[in-house]
Amino acid sequence: MKIHYECIACAVNQAQKIVEMSTPDLKKRREAMVFFGRRIGEFFEESSVPATDGGRLFLELYSFLGDDDPFRDYKRRSTELAAKVATDIGDVEDFGRALKLAIAGNVIDFAVGYDPEKIGEDILRMTEEELYVDESNELFEELGRAKSLLYLLDNCGEIYFDKLFLELIRKLFPGLTIYVAAKEGPIINDATVEDLREAGFEELANVVSTGSCLPGAPMEYVSKEFKEIFRKVDVVIAKGQANFETLSDLKDSRIFFLLKAKCRPISRELNVPQGSLVCIRGA
Amino acid sequence: MKIHYECIACAVNQAQKIVEMSTPDLKKRREAMVFFGRRIGEFFEESSVPATDGGRLFLELYSFLGDDDPFRDYKRRSTELAAKVATDIGDVEDFGRALKLAIAGNVIDFAVGYDPEKIGEDILRMTEEELYVDESNELFEELGRAKSLLYLLDNCGEIYFDKLFLELIRKLFPGLTIYVAAKEGPIINDATVEDLREAGFEELANVVSTGSCLPGAPMEYVSKEFKEIFRKVDVVIAKGQANFETLSDLKDSRIFFLLKAKCRPISRELNVPQGSLVCIRGA
Repeated sequence: MKIHYECIACAVNQAQKIVEMSTPDLKKRREAMVFFGRRIGEFFEESSVPATDGGRLFLELYSFLGDDDPFRDYKRRSTELAAKVATDIGDVEDFGRALKLAIAGNVIDFAVGYDPEKIGEDILRMTEEELYVDESNELFEELGRAKSLLYLLDNCGEIYFDKLFLELIRKLFPGLTIYVAAKEGPIINDATVEDLREAGFEELANVVSTGSCLPGAPMEYVSKEFKEIFRKVDVVIAKGQANFETLSDLKDSRIFFLLKAKCRPISRELNVPQGSLVCIRGA
Repeated sequence: MKIHYECIACAVNQAQKIVEMSTPDLKKRREAMVFFGRRIGEFFEESSVPATDGGRLFLELYSFLGDDDPFRDYKRRSTELAAKVATDIGDVEDFGRALKLAIAGNVIDFAVGYDPEKIGEDILRMTEEELYVDESNELFEELGRAKSLLYLLDNCGEIYFDKLFLELIRKLFPGLTIYVAAKEGPIINDATVEDLREAGFEELANVVSTGSCLPGAPMEYVSKEFKEIFRKVDVVIAKGQANFETLSDLKDSRIFFLLKAKCRPISRELNVPQGSLVCIRGA
């Protein structure tokens, strides 16, 4: 997916929140925003993928701020709250319900200013909603035929609902080799491989890194090892907006995108109302 | 006043709204925002005055869009609604109340996403509020001593409340030579000299142009004629945020700033709560 016209202002608004989280010093905040303003023009072109070029720009901002993870607190709170809600939900036996929980977990997103305190109530409300596009039957069938699955994770907190879904997938398709992938290091509120280890994913699947800190799985920046896994697996579950942004142009029928269409560009691209929950096949 | 850290994102958000008002074509909107992203770094430095460098950038965006006034409709609606509210209010006999109405009229501001439909109710509510900083007694005294007044106007719509105030000033200080200044041509929702003529200001005062389209009265961009008037008058009433941004660094005791502190940078600069109404002397 290429940038829509709203992506530039969204990147700048995120940058401002990053700067606010990183330092209370007004002078340093101003220097950082002036720096960001100077650099943005060098990153965004009409052919930019928002998650990729936005992510590269945020990493430059981190470096300017001398802060390798301004999201420490936001991620810790998301993790604590989501882990508690997921524990309360416990085992899920129904494929459709587990899939919907995983999609609902995608509501946790710093980019859209989400307050993690609302996770409990939001998750329960969303499991009552219908998916606006629901190709989960196809996903279920493909998993039945598949030997291997790559599950691309998205945000901290959200991963605890992915874990419930993965536990059921493992139970339903015991022969499946499962890879779960997260980021090499911190970027916005994305889960890193370290976050996966802490959440106990190693007991469920092979934990792998995309080999990049960038959001999603941009093929020009991921590692050779990751690319090899991506190439060979039978099915890919790609969670969240950034995975959609970086993989949708591949038109790959092995990929199923599970996400909440939180912003206007994504919902316009998918042709669904803003806020919709979708499980949609890559081709 | 120099930019605060929030001014960059604010400029980009305004640019997005400008682009939306100017064209429904998504491709053209994207081109325009990418263009804006490329140019922003060339305008904003830590020593930038937000209204001036933001204004210069918006004029470049207008030119890129091939649209010399994307605010036509917004300004027309503001004018119609404000003119009606001001007519209903009729003559005002009290200096403090007329001054407060003029300040309350400053609520009409595109930059902060103001919906002009709310003018009637907002103006009446605000005239019940106290000014957070009130140096209007000094203004009254200075006007009594003065031979000449320059009244710097701000936004379309708002000018109808300034007109009520000016009518009273003329009545109270009949010997005063009054100049009212507005912009040479369209910029955001600022009033132009043409708007002043349409609103009947020529019957009240000498209508003059700042000689520039830029918001406020930035001394490096206004005309020689305007500068001459500015230099020679005894008192200056400067309405709104942009006039404050461009003139506050002069520390000129002839200037009285009348405004509503709508954004965080302005309220931080003035050390007042956001949303405050103020009448504050330049030095």
